[in-house]
Amino acid sequence: MTQELEYLFNPRSVAIIGASESPLGSGMFMTALMNMGFPKIFPINPKGGKVYGLKTYPNVKDVPEPVDYAIISVPAKIVPKVVEDCMEKGVKAAQIFTSGFSEVGKEGKKLEERISEIAKGRVRIIGPNCMGIYCPASKLSYLPGSPKEEGSVSLISQSGRYATFAIILANQLGIRFNKIISFGNACDLDSTDFLEYLGDDPETKIITMYVEGVTDGKRFFNTLKEVTKKKPVIIWKGGRTEEGSNAATSHTGSLAGSNLIWESLFKQAGVISVKSMDELLDVISAFLHLPPPKGRNMAILTGGGGETVTSADACVDEGLNLVPFDQETIERLKEILYIPGTILRNPLDYSGLGFMPGIIGRLIEVVAEDENVDILLVLLFTDPALLKNMMGTSIAQQFLGAEQFTPAQSDEGVSSDLLKDFIGASMNDLIRMKEEIKKPMVAIVPMAAEDREAALKFQEAGIPIYPSFERALKAISKLIEYHEFLRRRHEIL
Amino acid sequence: MTQELEYLFNPRSVAIIGASESPLGSGMFMTALMNMGFPKIFPINPKGGKVYGLKTYPNVKDVPEPVDYAIISVPAKIVPKVVEDCMEKGVKAAQIFTSGFSEVGKEGKKLEERISEIAKGRVRIIGPNCMGIYCPASKLSYLPGSPKEEGSVSLISQSGRYATFAIILANQLGIRFNKIISFGNACDLDSTDFLEYLGDDPETKIITMYVEGVTDGKRFFNTLKEVTKKKPVIIWKGGRTEEGSNAATSHTGSLAGSNLIWESLFKQAGVISVKSMDELLDVISAFLHLPPPKGRNMAILTGGGGETVTSADACVDEGLNLVPFDQETIERLKEILYIPGTILRNPLDYSGLGFMPGIIGRLIEVVAEDENVDILLVLLFTDPALLKNMMGTSIAQQFLGAEQFTPAQSDEGVSSDLLKDFIGASMNDLIRMKEEIKKPMVAIVPMAAEDREAALKFQEAGIPIYPSFERALKAISKLIEYHEFLRRRHEIL
Repeated sequence: MTQELEYLFNPRSVAIIGASESPLGSGMFMTALMNMGFPKIFPINPKGGKVYGLKTYPNVKDVPEPVDYAIISVPAKIVPKVVEDCMEKGVKAAQIFTSGFSEVGKEGKKLEERISEIAKGRVRIIGPNCMGIYCPASKLSYLPGSPKEEGSVSLISQSGRYATFAIILANQLGIRFNKIISFGNACDLDSTDFLEYLGDDPETKIITMYVEGVTDGKRFFNTLKEVTKKKPVIIWKGGRTEEGSNAATSHTGSLAGSNLIWESLFKQAGVISVKSMDELLDVISAFLHLPPPKGRNMAILTGGGGETVTSADACVDEGLNLVPFDQETIERLKEILYIPGTILRNPLDYSGLGFMPGIIGRLIEVVAEDENVDILLVLLFTDPALLKNMMGTSIAQQFLGAEQFTPAQSDEGVSSDLLKDFIGASMNDLIRMKEEIKKPMVAIVPMAAEDREAALKFQEAGIPIYPSFERALKAISKLIEYHEFLRRRHEIL
Repeated sequence: MTQELEYLFNPRSVAIIGASESPLGSGMFMTALMNMGFPKIFPINPKGGKVYGLKTYPNVKDVPEPVDYAIISVPAKIVPKVVEDCMEKGVKAAQIFTSGFSEVGKEGKKLEERISEIAKGRVRIIGPNCMGIYCPASKLSYLPGSPKEEGSVSLISQSGRYATFAIILANQLGIRFNKIISFGNACDLDSTDFLEYLGDDPETKIITMYVEGVTDGKRFFNTLKEVTKKKPVIIWKGGRTEEGSNAATSHTGSLAGSNLIWESLFKQAGVISVKSMDELLDVISAFLHLPPPKGRNMAILTGGGGETVTSADACVDEGLNLVPFDQETIERLKEILYIPGTILRNPLDYSGLGFMPGIIGRLIEVVAEDENVDILLVLLFTDPALLKNMMGTSIAQQFLGAEQFTPAQSDEGVSSDLLKDFIGASMNDLIRMKEEIKKPMVAIVPMAAEDREAALKFQEAGIPIYPSFERALKAISKLIEYHEFLRRRHEIL
C-alpha cells in the first residue's frame, strides 16, 4: 500500500482531465499547481486549444509521456469512462473532484460503485467529491496561493472546505503542513489507508484528521492503535450527534455511527479528540513545540488578581493541578516582586511590575527551578493598542525614567516606537528563557489572533501561544493525556 | 440607597487624595478624568505644588467647594485618617484604590474593619483595592483614553483588571457600557447594592457581573430574583473551584463558597452564567441586539459540507434544534441554488454560489419565511486575506464577468478594491435583510476578531457577529434560556 501511495504524494506528472480556466472548477487546480511550480502539468480537454497557456490533449491517453496522477473534473456521468481511460494510460492514482455521487442518494451511489468496480486494484482513486492532495515538498496543491514551506503536521480531511481552511488558518499561526489529503466520499482509498501511510511517513510527526465516517471500522481502529504508539493522532470527529450525522450523509455519504462508541474507541487507542477547528489548531501548537510534561502541575504567571482566580478555575476544569510554590521559590520571588503585602502564591500576580523590563524573565527562571512545577503559563501583552490603553504610561515611565516622563505622554498615549521596543524586549525575554529552562512553557497573549507578527515569532521560537488561559489549558490537558497514554502503555507492556 | 448612589455616578466634583503623576497610581485616575473632560477635579497632596497643572490642596477639608466623590490613593495605614477627613468635609462617597487590606490577611482585615466602622452610614465606601467607576455620561473613568460614548450594558466587577479589559475588548466589538463598577474588597458597598441600583437604573438594559464572593448571600439572591424579572443579569463567577476560591481569598478577601450552591441559585433566579471573558462578550452581543426568539429552532446557512456537519453537532451540544425546512421553502431554495444534485436541507450548504452578489440575501428571505425557523445563523466572509485565498478568483469572475477575467488575476489574486466591493455588497445584503425579516439573525464571520471594521458595522446595524458557529450557538442558547425563564415565570404567576 505504502508503495502505491508514493505516486500520490510524489507524482512525476499530473493530468488535469476536464481542464478549464473556471476558478471554482479545474481552473483552481491548474492555478494551484502552477503557483507551486509543479513541473509537468498536462491539461486534458477534447475541445483542444490552450488552458492558461498550456497545450491541451483531447484524451489522457494522448499524452506522449507517462502520467502518474490525474485530477478529474468532468460531469459525474462521464467519470467512469474517464477512469477507464486513466487505466488504459497506466495512470497510477486519480483524484475525482466531481461531486454528485453517494452523497446525493441511490443513483449517485450506484455510479460511485461502478467507478470502484472499474478502478479496482488498477488505478487508485481519491474521492469522489474532494480536493485531493496538498504536499509542498512535491509542489502539489489544490489551493491557489498556498504556502510552499513544509512542516511536520499532516491532515487527513473528509471535508474539502476544512482542508482549505486548515492551510489558511495554520499559515497565519506559523504552523506548516507536510501533507494534507482531502478524500471526500472515499470510494477506494479511505482514511485508514492514509492513516497507515502517514503512520510510516518519516516526514509526518503529528497526524490530524477531520473524519465523518469510515468504511471498515475494525481496520480503522486497529490501524489507529498501531499509529498512536509512534506519533500523536488528533481527530475532529464530524457527525457526533444525530443531526450532525444526518448532515454527514448528505455531505460525504458517510454513516457517522454512534458517538459513544467512537469516543470509547478513541480513548482505547490513545487518540486526542477535539471538537472544533480552533481546538484542533490549539492542540497542534502544543504537540508541535512542547516536550513531554513530567506531570499535571501548572505554574501560572499573570498580571491581575481576577486572572489568578479565573485561570485557577480553568486549571481545575481541565483536570490540571496548581501546586503551591516551595518556600525557597517564594523567598526568591520576594526579592523580585518587592511590593509589601503581595501574597506570592500560584497563580502568581506579578501586577504592574511585569511591565518593567526583565522582570518576566527573572520570574520564569525562579518558577521553572521549583521542583513542583511541570509546566509554565506566562501572560504577556504584545498588542500595541491593548498595551497603550492598559499601561502605556507606566511603560513609558519605566523606559524613559520618571524624570523625563511628562503628562502629555500620559494623555496622548505612548509613542508606537516605545511600545514596540517594550514588546520586543518582553518577547525576547520569554524566548531567551525558553532556551534556558528545560520545562514546557506556553505564552498567553491576549488578542494574539490579531497579532500575527507576535504569533509567528513565538511559533518560530518554539513557544506555543494562546489568546486565553482557557484555550491554553485545554490544549495542554490534551498533550498530557497523550503522554500519560504512552506511559500507561509502556508500563503494561 | 438608590438616592445615595446617585452621588457616586453623578458627582459634581471629584477629589483625588494622594494626587500624583504616577501612572500606576493616582496619576492614572487624574489622566482618565482629564481625558473624559470631567469638569471639577481637586488634587489633594500635603506636599503642595501642582499635579498635571492643577492646583493641589493639602487636605480634602481645604477644598473651598463641596466635594461629592473622593478617590483615595494613599498608603493603607493612612486610609482611616483620610476617610475621617472625607466625613468631616461632607464627601458623599469615597473610592479606595489602595490595596493591602483583607486580601493580605488578618492585619489587613482589621484595618479594613476600622474603615467600615469610621465610615458607617456617613460616607459610602467603594473598595478598598478597586478601580471605582466608569460612567461616560457623567465623564467618570479610571482608564486613560477610555471611550466617551455610552451604551446600555453595565458591569459590576470585583476585579479591576477585568473592569479594564471589558472596556477595551468591548470597544473593539462596538459594545458600549453605561456604567462599570469595580468594587474590590467591598468593605461597605457590595455587589448587591450595585445590583439593586442598576436594577432600577433606566439607562441600564443589561447587567453583567464578575463576582468572586458576596457578604450577604441571602440578600444577594433575593435582589437577583427581583432584578432578573426586569432585565437580564449575566454573571461570570470567579472562584468556582477550590483552587480558584483560594486565589479569590488572596485577591479580594472573598469567601467564594460552593459552586453547586451558586449554580443552583443562579438557575432559580434566572441568571445567565458564563465562564470566560469571551463568553461574557458573546452573550452581551446576543442580548443587545436579538429580539426574543420564539423557540429553539435554528436555520443555518453556510458554504461548505464540513460546516453543515459540525455546525449541526454544535447545535445539539447547546441543546438547540435543527428543524427540517418545509416543502415550499425547499422549492423556493431550488430556484436560487440550481446546482443539480445539491440536497437542500438544514444546515444549508450554499457552496460557491454564496459568492455571487445578492444570493445570500435571497436565501435569508426564503428561510426566514419558513414557519419552522426561529433563528437564522448565516456564514459570511469579511476578511480580505481569507477571501483572496478561498475564492478570490471566483469573485473576480462574478464581478468582472467571465470574459474579462484573465489567468493573471487568478495567479496573483484579486485586487483589494474588488474584494472590498464584494465584502461591502455582502454585508449590506445581510444588513438590509435584517431590517426586512422579523426573526433574530446572527452572522458567523470567521476571523472577525481581526476585522474590526466589519465587527463595528454589524454591531451598529444590530447584528451580533461571532467568529465560529460554536461560540454563536452557545450565546444564543443563553439568550433562549433567559426568555424561557421569563415565560415560565409568567405562566406560574
